[in-house]
Amino acid sequence: MERHFDTSLRELKEQLVVMASWVERAIEEATQGLQLSSLERLENVYELEKKINQSHMSVDSACLKLLALQQPLATDLRLIFAIIKINTDLERMGDQAVNISRNAREYIQAPPMKPLIDLPIMFQEVRQMVGVALDSFVKSNENLARDVLQRDDRVDALKNKIFKDTLEHLKTHADQIEQGLTLILIARNLERIGDHSTNIAEDVIFALTGEDVRHASQAATIKNVLKSSS
Amino acid sequence: MERHFDTSLRELKEQLVVMASWVERAIEEATQGLQLSSLERLENVYELEKKINQSHMSVDSACLKLLALQQPLATDLRLIFAIIKINTDLERMGDQAVNISRNAREYIQAPPMKPLIDLPIMFQEVRQMVGVALDSFVKSNENLARDVLQRDDRVDALKNKIFKDTLEHLKTHADQIEQGLTLILIARNLERIGDHSTNIAEDVIFALTGEDVRHASQAATIKNVLKSSS
Repeated sequence: MERHFDTSLRELKEQLVVMASWVERAIEEATQGLQLSSLERLENVYELEKKINQSHMSVDSACLKLLALQQPLATDLRLIFAIIKINTDLERMGDQAVNISRNAREYIQAPPMKPLIDLPIMFQEVRQMVGVALDSFVKSNENLARDVLQRDDRVDALKNKIFKDTLEHLKTHADQIEQGLTLILIARNLERIGDHSTNIAEDVIFALTGEDVRHASQAATIKNVLKSSS
Repeated sequence: MERHFDTSLRELKEQLVVMASWVERAIEEATQGLQLSSLERLENVYELEKKINQSHMSVDSACLKLLALQQPLATDLRLIFAIIKINTDLERMGDQAVNISRNAREYIQAPPMKPLIDLPIMFQEVRQMVGVALDSFVKSNENLARDVLQRDDRVDALKNKIFKDTLEHLKTHADQIEQGLTLILIARNLERIGDHSTNIAEDVIFALTGEDVRHASQAATIKNVLKSSS
């Protein structure tokens, strides 16, 4: 028979997984809404964000209750600690989906600028990165989590390329400056979603192994970081 | 005589306060470096960020140890819970100071664009906001924390004004587009620092009162949020 504590912890994990599915959905709606110029899909993000925000508070409250009533130790404590952090990242990913949705709304209502050549590639990379990060949590799989850390450089490179190409384009199309800035901000929003996925992966590794890889991975990629300045 | 637990908790708070002073200093160096075109001051941010990152890990580790060994209850548990979250926000504020420093480096090495009219005002607003948020933690003062929540709209409005004015300027100065984008990104970095200050204030209120004001304040300012899309 499952102990009361195990039941509560399992329910907490399940709650986080449901919340994560809304976050994935919000990112999907925001990016698809832009690609398909669908205001309706962009609107869907707001309803999802409300649910994400409610979960954000109720996951924290469940974590606090578990810590207070059950006084977990070792592995269980590490898992709850990771969930507290993952919860924060998920909520901010929801905020970024809303930012994308708002920016996309402006973008698709103005005259088209130029084909969104690299943005759909970045959408795909970021959605995959989010998917693998969440999968690593659901499956308690360290390898998947480490895979996420490798993907961050690709996302950063795509963002830098979109910045550069858009700036180049605007030099000869100054009248499209609002549109160009909107694209750049969307690329920035996506990069932030990638960063949150990295945070989640780092927290999963910590929960599973007790190893804090956070600023180690930062030190290793410092050269890349120094190239990107936004 | 102070209990062992109280000593540990006091030391943890002190550690967070030292970390917070580095964060304030990093923001100061980044913004002053830009205003005074001082590469040296911009460089100082990197050393500070290293210290912030080390503290980030050691504060988390101390929180986990306290939770594991002391199994705190009620008020103490809420305080530790808040510290875990504030620690994350402080580290990200350090990241944003680094972003400002990098963007500022590009900005001051290129030909000057136009006077930074509103940016110094935004620097001041954000530095004050950070100061009041940290003060509310140090002094366990709910009123100060609530004051921070009021300041967020002003910072957002300043960011929107900088976006708008810069875009307007660029329409007739397309050759300055890189410089303009850099300014916009700095305004965005500052806005994010303001958001993290809001998070800290919300965590202080939770630690002191048990009230979770996070998405309540979001709901109240939803109208303003909807106007701003970046």
